[in-house]
Amino acid sequence: MTYTYEMDGAAIYAESFRTIRAEADLARFTADEEPLAVRMIHAAGMVGLAEFIRFSKGFATEARSSLNAGAPILCDARMVSEGVTRHRLPAQNEVICTLHDPRVPEMAREMGNTRSAAALELWRPHLEGALVAIGNAPTALFHLLNMLQDPDCPRPAAIIGCPVGFVGAAESKAALWADQPVPCCIVEGRLGGSAITVAAINAIASRAE
Amino acid sequence: MTYTYEMDGAAIYAESFRTIRAEADLARFTADEEPLAVRMIHAAGMVGLAEFIRFSKGFATEARSSLNAGAPILCDARMVSEGVTRHRLPAQNEVICTLHDPRVPEMAREMGNTRSAAALELWRPHLEGALVAIGNAPTALFHLLNMLQDPDCPRPAAIIGCPVGFVGAAESKAALWADQPVPCCIVEGRLGGSAITVAAINAIASRAE
Repeated sequence: MTYTYEMDGAAIYAESFRTIRAEADLARFTADEEPLAVRMIHAAGMVGLAEFIRFSKGFATEARSSLNAGAPILCDARMVSEGVTRHRLPAQNEVICTLHDPRVPEMAREMGNTRSAAALELWRPHLEGALVAIGNAPTALFHLLNMLQDPDCPRPAAIIGCPVGFVGAAESKAALWADQPVPCCIVEGRLGGSAITVAAINAIASRAE
Repeated sequence: MTYTYEMDGAAIYAESFRTIRAEADLARFTADEEPLAVRMIHAAGMVGLAEFIRFSKGFATEARSSLNAGAPILCDARMVSEGVTRHRLPAQNEVICTLHDPRVPEMAREMGNTRSAAALELWRPHLEGALVAIGNAPTALFHLLNMLQDPDCPRPAAIIGCPVGFVGAAESKAALWADQPVPCCIVEGRLGGSAITVAAINAIASRAE
């Protein structure tokens, strides 16, 4: 028996988003935030994600403006940078992941930190006005917060802070939410990860569904 | 105030896996399956994932043997292929994703299917004995099942079927589980995705934690 199934990508997206909007409690999101939440839920395959998503005031607007102005997107992992849909970007924005730069292992040894955290030191020349997307490593988010304690460190426009897991993820996101050095978005607790982070970026990049 | 946090990657992994083993109900998994389930839960940030994970008999053994014998890993999305930790692979196995092959858009138009499904047609020369990893597109998993209805289609050694989402994901995984053309692993229902799929691959590739 041959399987029959929906083969039209646009129809699949439309039905997916309809289902999410029918099932998820999205009432507390603004009109600017709602499409981001919908895509994040879509990537997670879980309407219950909604209750853990937090946007600081102005996050969606600031993040969109930065991309429209040509800002780069700085990602902590290749699974994040590879997931960004290039044709959605409004200004052919650069998507940068420094994790596999050959200098990183030695930098990590010197810093006594993970490679994910050390790789952020290579963000400095790109950081001013950038959209930051941390979707994997809690150590990267903690290190970013420590970098931003220095008033001379360049400021990104906005931070998506969605590392996932059992050690440091909940804590690093709580720290970002408490600090709010710039407008930010988090998924509270252990949930998060590259797919949810990519979904937020893709929704910021374009309103097209 | 500067944040202090665990900066040792090995310690973070060890504590994460300890937490998962303390919290998750893993009793129904065999000794061969348990490390796969633990890593999949780790990637999801959710101990509740355990109840949705299904391994067919012999899956873990077959999948491991195929990689040890040098089989390639065929991935439906770049977020999957990019996530595979190369130094864990036992035989410098090839990791193949054909989604961005320039022939794919035209093939998809001709087939009246998604690019994710069309890209699988380019797997045929690599499919015999391969480890297949579908972590994104339900249409890819449905198309693979239809390809395998043809007895002349080469057989992979094992299939990780973990597409995510609201249209076709649950259905395509249920179809794989009912058919079992070769040993397979699924996450029942809507949950799944590239991170969980990559975690399964990385656990199959090496027992190192």
